[in-house]
Amino acid sequence: MIEHLSKLTENIYQSLIKWRRDFHKHAESGWVEFRTASIVASKLLSWGYEVHVGRDVINEDDRMGVPKTEVLEQEKKRALSQGADPEWVEQFSGGFTGVVGILDTGLPGPTIAFRVDMDALDIQEALSNEHRPTKEGFSSINANMMHACGHDAHTSIGLGVAYVLSQIKDQLKGIIKLIFQPAEEGVRGAKSMVTAGVVDDVDIFIAIHVGFEAELGELICGDLGFMATTKFDVTYTGEASHAGARPEQGKNALLAAATAALNLHAISRHSEGYSRVNVGFLQAGNGRNIIPNQAIFKVEVRGETTSINDFMYQKALQIIQSAADMYEVEVNIDIVGAAKSVESSEELISFISQQAKHINEIHTIQDSYKLGGSEDATYMISHVKERGGHAAYIVFGTTLSAGHHNEQFDIDENVIPIAVKTLTLCAYNAVSYNTNRMIYNPQC
Amino acid sequence: MIEHLSKLTENIYQSLIKWRRDFHKHAESGWVEFRTASIVASKLLSWGYEVHVGRDVINEDDRMGVPKTEVLEQEKKRALSQGADPEWVEQFSGGFTGVVGILDTGLPGPTIAFRVDMDALDIQEALSNEHRPTKEGFSSINANMMHACGHDAHTSIGLGVAYVLSQIKDQLKGIIKLIFQPAEEGVRGAKSMVTAGVVDDVDIFIAIHVGFEAELGELICGDLGFMATTKFDVTYTGEASHAGARPEQGKNALLAAATAALNLHAISRHSEGYSRVNVGFLQAGNGRNIIPNQAIFKVEVRGETTSINDFMYQKALQIIQSAADMYEVEVNIDIVGAAKSVESSEELISFISQQAKHINEIHTIQDSYKLGGSEDATYMISHVKERGGHAAYIVFGTTLSAGHHNEQFDIDENVIPIAVKTLTLCAYNAVSYNTNRMIYNPQC
Amino acid sequence: MIEHLSKLTENIYQSLIKWRRDFHKHAESGWVEFRTASIVASKLLSWGYEVHVGRDVINEDDRMGVPKTEVLEQEKKRALSQGADPEWVEQFSGGFTGVVGILDTGLPGPTIAFRVDMDALDIQEALSNEHRPTKEGFSSINANMMHACGHDAHTSIGLGVAYVLSQIKDQLKGIIKLIFQPAEEGVRGAKSMVTAGVVDDVDIFIAIHVGFEAELGELICGDLGFMATTKFDVTYTGEASHAGARPEQGKNALLAAATAALNLHAISRHSEGYSRVNVGFLQAGNGRNIIPNQAIFKVEVRGETTSINDFMYQKALQIIQSAADMYEVEVNIDIVGAAKSVESSEELISFISQQAKHINEIHTIQDSYKLGGSEDATYMISHVKERGGHAAYIVFGTTLSAGHHNEQFDIDENVIPIAVKTLTLCAYNAVSYNTNRMIYNPQC
Amino acid sequence: MIEHLSKLTENIYQSLIKWRRDFHKHAESGWVEFRTASIVASKLLSWGYEVHVGRDVINEDDRMGVPKTEVLEQEKKRALSQGADPEWVEQFSGGFTGVVGILDTGLPGPTIAFRVDMDALDIQEALSNEHRPTKEGFSSINANMMHACGHDAHTSIGLGVAYVLSQIKDQLKGIIKLIFQPAEEGVRGAKSMVTAGVVDDVDIFIAIHVGFEAELGELICGDLGFMATTKFDVTYTGEASHAGARPEQGKNALLAAATAALNLHAISRHSEGYSRVNVGFLQAGNGRNIIPNQAIFKVEVRGETTSINDFMYQKALQIIQSAADMYEVEVNIDIVGAAKSVESSEELISFISQQAKHINEIHTIQDSYKLGGSEDATYMISHVKERGGHAAYIVFGTTLSAGHHNEQFDIDENVIPIAVKTLTLCAYNAVSYNTNRMIYNPQC
Repeated sequence: MIEHLSKLTENIYQSLIKWRRDFHKHAESGWVEFRTASIVASKLLSWGYEVHVGRDVINEDDRMGVPKTEVLEQEKKRALSQGADPEWVEQFSGGFTGVVGILDTGLPGPTIAFRVDMDALDIQEALSNEHRPTKEGFSSINANMMHACGHDAHTSIGLGVAYVLSQIKDQLKGIIKLIFQPAEEGVRGAKSMVTAGVVDDVDIFIAIHVGFEAELGELICGDLGFMATTKFDVTYTGEASHAGARPEQGKNALLAAATAALNLHAISRHSEGYSRVNVGFLQAGNGRNIIPNQAIFKVEVRGETTSINDFMYQKALQIIQSAADMYEVEVNIDIVGAAKSVESSEELISFISQQAKHINEIHTIQDSYKLGGSEDATYMISHVKERGGHAAYIVFGTTLSAGHHNEQFDIDENVIPIAVKTLTLCAYNAVSYNTNRMIYNPQC
Repeated sequence: MIEHLSKLTENIYQSLIKWRRDFHKHAESGWVEFRTASIVASKLLSWGYEVHVGRDVINEDDRMGVPKTEVLEQEKKRALSQGADPEWVEQFSGGFTGVVGILDTGLPGPTIAFRVDMDALDIQEALSNEHRPTKEGFSSINANMMHACGHDAHTSIGLGVAYVLSQIKDQLKGIIKLIFQPAEEGVRGAKSMVTAGVVDDVDIFIAIHVGFEAELGELICGDLGFMATTKFDVTYTGEASHAGARPEQGKNALLAAATAALNLHAISRHSEGYSRVNVGFLQAGNGRNIIPNQAIFKVEVRGETTSINDFMYQKALQIIQSAADMYEVEVNIDIVGAAKSVESSEELISFISQQAKHINEIHTIQDSYKLGGSEDATYMISHVKERGGHAAYIVFGTTLSAGHHNEQFDIDENVIPIAVKTLTLCAYNAVSYNTNRMIYNPQC
Repeated sequence: MIEHLSKLTENIYQSLIKWRRDFHKHAESGWVEFRTASIVASKLLSWGYEVHVGRDVINEDDRMGVPKTEVLEQEKKRALSQGADPEWVEQFSGGFTGVVGILDTGLPGPTIAFRVDMDALDIQEALSNEHRPTKEGFSSINANMMHACGHDAHTSIGLGVAYVLSQIKDQLKGIIKLIFQPAEEGVRGAKSMVTAGVVDDVDIFIAIHVGFEAELGELICGDLGFMATTKFDVTYTGEASHAGARPEQGKNALLAAATAALNLHAISRHSEGYSRVNVGFLQAGNGRNIIPNQAIFKVEVRGETTSINDFMYQKALQIIQSAADMYEVEVNIDIVGAAKSVESSEELISFISQQAKHINEIHTIQDSYKLGGSEDATYMISHVKERGGHAAYIVFGTTLSAGHHNEQFDIDENVIPIAVKTLTLCAYNAVSYNTNRMIYNPQC
Repeated sequence: MIEHLSKLTENIYQSLIKWRRDFHKHAESGWVEFRTASIVASKLLSWGYEVHVGRDVINEDDRMGVPKTEVLEQEKKRALSQGADPEWVEQFSGGFTGVVGILDTGLPGPTIAFRVDMDALDIQEALSNEHRPTKEGFSSINANMMHACGHDAHTSIGLGVAYVLSQIKDQLKGIIKLIFQPAEEGVRGAKSMVTAGVVDDVDIFIAIHVGFEAELGELICGDLGFMATTKFDVTYTGEASHAGARPEQGKNALLAAATAALNLHAISRHSEGYSRVNVGFLQAGNGRNIIPNQAIFKVEVRGETTSINDFMYQKALQIIQSAADMYEVEVNIDIVGAAKSVESSEELISFISQQAKHINEIHTIQDSYKLGGSEDATYMISHVKERGGHAAYIVFGTTLSAGHHNEQFDIDENVIPIAVKTLTLCAYNAVSYNTNRMIYNPQC
């Protein structure tokens, strides 16, 4: 079967590359992936998938960090002007840009889901010819939106997996689910898909990423050390006053924010594991001679465990509220992102490693890597495991031109077919030998 | 003579109002008063004044807070498109938007100078019909530029004084100087006119303002309590790093700025008089998950005396440098404004009060008012006094619709002729009875 | 009469010096002036004064900064061992160490009161022979208690005034009151005498001090610029935890106090006048490797007016409570001192100046001096004025060997008879010419 | 052999307990263990050991946190008064209270060293009868010095090991070294013994502790997670000034220290491992109304690795210097303690575990425990390993009455013979089967 899957994959090699470059060129940030999502939905439908989109797969209450209505409208127009299918776009209206494709074999068997993310970063792509996408004409045409993390490749991989599995549908059992998630950057989107029920029935769940510090041909399959995290914006509202004439009448939001920032960074280390805190952005005040009546700052806390992250978040709330009280300013806190810390299922990790050994292009399998970052696929992993399923997060190595989130970021595109082959083999072997959802075939 | 001056003033009443509204409608911020200055220069020339402009009256080295070249160029184009005379505008090119008109009687006598300022504030004017300028169609057509401090009236008063005195030139002695200063807001312009020599030969100097909390018919003539001030921008440059993956590699400019802000406000009170400090604006960092590598903040210190202001400024420098060192960030400090603390000459204050008693519309003369602000006319006052001359700063009351610097600010325009009458009477009586520059006529 | 008063004063010159040196040698801090007060009470009684002491003249509820019971007991024993009269001491028991002597002439007339203070500072007196009190054998024998502010002279002056007036009782009208106040240092005692009613019936009130920067022969009679002040101790109680093993379990009182200290100093300047704030002492934590669970700090705020001081105090409370909340520590605030800002009555100042011109030794009378300190006689001055009386605070110059509160502080004792002569002349002239309490004799 | 060693140990059971209680009763803090060390030296000598003490085994330059000369002298007198041998005490004069006993078998073989520590804590022992040492009459008679960490048992164990091994000397090969270290609390003593050469020739090194959370019968033999640490005192010296009269003339050491404390706690987390920072004590200022001219604070930083600790220390220095500069105060930094992070040698850990299985009283052997603290035996472990030797740190469980460093701390004394048996068996088996220093006998 691996030869057959390889052949099917090689057949669409040009498409895989073309798709990725097209997504790269039309990079769309979180919650505005109107064009990307409409292309994904169209293709899934054409390959025989049952397609769910929009509010069916996104729970409005749990979306985080959604842009303002004006931005959503403007980006919708932009997407349409860049060729997005108006019928699909309408269903994504308001920023409900998630897509789920379902391939039901009609035979009893486990439900296996693959999750990829589609959003770009709010970064202006490098425009010099030393940057290959620019030189070869596929760098982002959308200002301040760039695929600098590889989600364009993820979307392409998701489509490749969908296509290949559709071609061997009659050799599969159970149900295949392809989940295309919006707004992973800032860990804003996954929770809303979980509470919309997207992974409620999933027995086997695999989320993927490309890159990090792994080279092409490496697979990281094991503990990735994702930190739990909470991301939130704080707004302080005080009272302005002339700094020369009536300084005592002001309520100084800038000093409140400065006090909060310093004391947030002074939150105690935790003896049970790693923690992080950062005030990554702060803006306060208007004129030089006015006591600042307004401040906004962007905070994130992290923890090696969900419990440590909760400790950090609770301490942060206490500090932020107290600093506001200190300067008699009003405070508003808006959670804009969150992720959990979870570990992949050992059995599934072991199974995936077994499969990967059959892939010629994979020469190294690492069983752990300390990313030091956060991922909201953890919401899905956690949910699947809580309901008795198995879940894993794996990374396909690919040689990078620059680090993730750098304006010069680019990948070795050969990672795309490698990932398609590995994931389709996992799907085939996970579902074809048994109907007992949790016993993997040891021979594969 | 007062009757004659009154009549001359009443004759141009409509013009005074029209000029003010025209300047209001075409409000221009500091250093980009291209249109305003070219109108002033044209009129002075037409009334027989010798006109000096541009680099003749502005010393490039001492300009503070000048906009970037692109902004200057763009505003020059805007001014031209709003009807500014291209020949004059060319002489103001690069933001040298000062004008000085000289009326030499040819007879021996003192040199008396009047200084008005021409710049608007960086404020968006209120666009509701409850705001009279909007309702009557003369609110600012330039976005984010508004005459919310009355400098439009000052310019109109300056023109009125120039016109009236030109009509009685043969009854005057000595020299009359009309100084139209750019960029008073932020106390950025006066020093550059002083070091260009504009007040070197001045024996009697009067600067004016309208409004504050004085009503129409009031004159504040005495101690105004201007504080010395230094205004400066600080830029910190550190190193970015991923806040989750490599926090220890960052050099945190935001925390440096927060530390500086707090400690700046904690500078000790001074036993010899009032002081002030404000960090009125702070922006730091980019992304939430990046250790902030950049911060900019805007500071001002003030002192009841120049010496106290120097104390505040020296302490501030020490704190700003040390906070930078603490976080190993680079620091850049840019002085963008400065003013001195000075007092008006007692003899001149007394003289002006005497004259004001002859003006029917003035019913109240206050001898002191605590403004609590700063004014760069103090550079001129200080310079004139140091060279043996007499100088004063006076305020003509006018009922306001909202406080200074408010987007709803408007004045009672009747203050304009009152000021013209008072100042022209001062000019007449200061020069007509004697050739000894410092003996005022007690009878007038 | 001045000759007579001078003669009476000269007659007791040796006693005045002896008394002062005795008080100096047996210096007693605030609320433990057991020996000093018992000597004062005895003498007043022997000179025919009606004497009120202890709880009659001190309201327990309004005493501030009273030492602990053990200290009071121990100091009582010390006083007895140093010769204090046990009967009087018993009435001062518990630290009620105030004395009021009343000389009622039986004739209608105003009530005139003189207030002196009796307490020493918590300072160890210099023990080198370069310090005259040590060299001449009258430096303090009580460790860490020293008359370094001149209250020993004040007490001696008070006795001198009492004696001289008792000798001319039949030439006086109205009522003479001599108020000997405890615990002026730290502004702790006056309020409790005011609320005990001590100055309720006073028409003319004069409080005195010696020294400052005035030389012997100078009198400062006018505006002294006393600031209102509130002095308080703060205790934070958190939770200890091992800083290596369980840092997250601590509630850090030290960081709470550091945050409070910084932000207290950053309280806004006030546009209506001077203000001050100081955290003069801070102690927090125990061991290096323990999260500090305890902090204590001593704060004072001041204001040019009582209202500004209230502003400072309210802001301080807000900051102190919020910093406690920030670190989840308990807070306790204990007010240990307070004074008002008041001005002397103009008429009385003028009257005293008139009298002082008759004193040969006084060669200079200044009408203002900016002390920059606080004084709780202001409570009495304020109370007398509120009830329609006149009150003043004056300073008799005396050449100092070192500044106030310095361990080498010493005075020129000739200030004592000068003060006695001036004050007795004031008493005589204030009461002898009229029965209308508020009309001073302009001839005197 | 184990039976023989057990018998020898049981024979001295009463002595082991008596010794421990004697040391407990005469608890001596770091660098003043005059009595304890003299008893140890006497016994070692009497058992045939070559004894080195004082400056022979302590390098003066590397001692940290040594008390002042007066304290050393006073404690020496106290020790003599409590029966310390004057001849030995003289050799410890100046606080050189280390003892090393050497037993040379004369036969080729490895050098095996055991290190115990002798110092008490600066804690006042509980004096209630609920505390067994008090009830049974052996609680500390030295105020504020208490064995609340078990070093009294360690010293007793060291003596027991020395005695037992001296009894089987003819069955041993190589060299036995017993190291009795002063001043482990505060990690002050070990470095000075290392640089004096005490472990230069050691092939096998074992340091021990009793207690932590392990019960009697447990042995923790493996990774203990000691953090590297640096401990230091900071003194700031500014300028005092009256807070009301001349606040601007002060240099505020309290605010400098508050700023330093806050920013020290805000030092970035490190991505490569755990870190810690604590300002455990801070005292600043004198009087409430004086700008504080002095501050002292006690700091410690820790790191999971020596490199992370170095990062923390360098950042701390930068912050402390910059906060001093900010307030123009002088700074003095005094390192008073330091320890490294190291891991025990795997081979030695394995060997000790093997031996422990032969000890009946040991029922559980744990291979790791996260102490979260620091230990300066790490200097010795690191040095031995760097020179090719093997080194380990092990913990013998003992049921505690209260946690370490608690005033109610007490142990189950049965841990003493257990430790003696285990360590002597290790010594016997490590040296008796081979002359190759690094090959342990697998059978034992």
